[in-house]
Amino acid sequence: MPQFSGDERLEDLRQLVAAFAAERDWERFHSPRNLLLAVVSEIGECADIVRWQDDGGPAIPPGQEQAWADELADVFILLLRLADRSGVDLSAALHHKLAIAAAKYPADRFRGSNRKYDQA
Amino acid sequence: MPQFSGDERLEDLRQLVAAFAAERDWERFHSPRNLLLAVVSEIGECADIVRWQDDGGPAIPPGQEQAWADELADVFILLLRLADRSGVDLSAALHHKLAIAAAKYPADRFRGSNRKYDQA
Amino acid sequence: MPQFSGDERLEDLRQLVAAFAAERDWERFHSPRNLLLAVVSEIGECADIVRWQDDGGPAIPPGQEQAWADELADVFILLLRLADRSGVDLSAALHHKLAIAAAKYPADRFRGSNRKYDQA
Amino acid sequence: MPQFSGDERLEDLRQLVAAFAAERDWERFHSPRNLLLAVVSEIGECADIVRWQDDGGPAIPPGQEQAWADELADVFILLLRLADRSGVDLSAALHHKLAIAAAKYPADRFRGSNRKYDQA
Repeated sequence: MPQFSGDERLEDLRQLVAAFAAERDWERFHSPRNLLLAVVSEIGECADIVRWQDDGGPAIPPGQEQAWADELADVFILLLRLADRSGVDLSAALHHKLAIAAAKYPADRFRGSNRKYDQA
Repeated sequence: MPQFSGDERLEDLRQLVAAFAAERDWERFHSPRNLLLAVVSEIGECADIVRWQDDGGPAIPPGQEQAWADELADVFILLLRLADRSGVDLSAALHHKLAIAAAKYPADRFRGSNRKYDQA
Repeated sequence: MPQFSGDERLEDLRQLVAAFAAERDWERFHSPRNLLLAVVSEIGECADIVRWQDDGGPAIPPGQEQAWADELADVFILLLRLADRSGVDLSAALHHKLAIAAAKYPADRFRGSNRKYDQA
Repeated sequence: MPQFSGDERLEDLRQLVAAFAAERDWERFHSPRNLLLAVVSEIGECADIVRWQDDGGPAIPPGQEQAWADELADVFILLLRLADRSGVDLSAALHHKLAIAAAKYPADRFRGSNRKYDQA
């Protein structure tokens, strides 16, 4: 599995994306619901790439790797923007949610299982 | 707008989420298509929170702010995982995509406009 | 609000869509998960059309009405196919679900309210 | 593959769903963007059910068949409503889109192929 490139902080990426929008005076369009619909649109692009890939073959169709990376990037950019515009600290939220998940899914009880925490 | 908390690098977050999965032996479930469907599920949770919020009122229903942050965190966690499991360096992909977007949408020509780059 | 055109039965439409797929020998691609991802892709196209439409203006951008109808049709076609290929009678399922919803949301108690049935 | 139950016309179903909303005075909430987000939410519920089902096993997890049918019904109900509230005749749109698809994908050239019409 790949490392993500280097020393970039999530806060740096948030600022980069916010500056891109500010330079174009796009704040007016970036309401949470607009951004959520934009995320949905980009997720749809991801689904378009892999919709016919049965599990036997490669997950990403050969030759589409860059298109796939570009679509994931679009989702990420808009998610950073959505968090920013709805007052969510995405780092803090991630840690908060992982702590909840760790309590719901103790490693020794859920190893190798994909059942839900509230299933027998 | 909030800062994201501190000095956390995206690579640190990738490792944290990967370790969470590895401790539970969940790699077997984490194919790109499975993870994409999981992202779709969590995006649906976000949509559930704001579906009836007309633009006149608050974007996030009062009292639902933590639930909203939790759902965004779920999307982020699964997106980190999806990138990881499909060989995408999410930092590099973001920079690549922003460079493309900057070329398509020069700030001086698209300031205050939400039209598509290929629209007149 | 428009009527839907005429006397077409849902079963007729299911058969029409099934025949379209059969003529092209596409059953092999039409697993439930593939079709669900295809639905996600088409929903994304719908979201792309309305993502920047704030509630003040028209819901569908002027000039995009046919594109919008086409995308809703894509969702519908794939939903018919998804139901068909996963053994769901969509008519029966609709009636079953409306009966559940009618019990959860008695008209006299939920008139003009968008709260959830399990909210105070 | 199942038939859909009987003689129900799509127009009957549209009216049924519209009456359900009207009895509760829910038109005020049923803007196209609200309904689209509601569809996204229900699609997310579908994805939640099948997200970990690898292609080797059953498409729908055993014991979840009714839940799956209920979620497809939710998508259908909201799609009927979305079409209704955005002025789309869903029957006409389906026929229009199938005609386009038939022209793009002649049966003799695309039999057994999942490539896009504009791919070599």
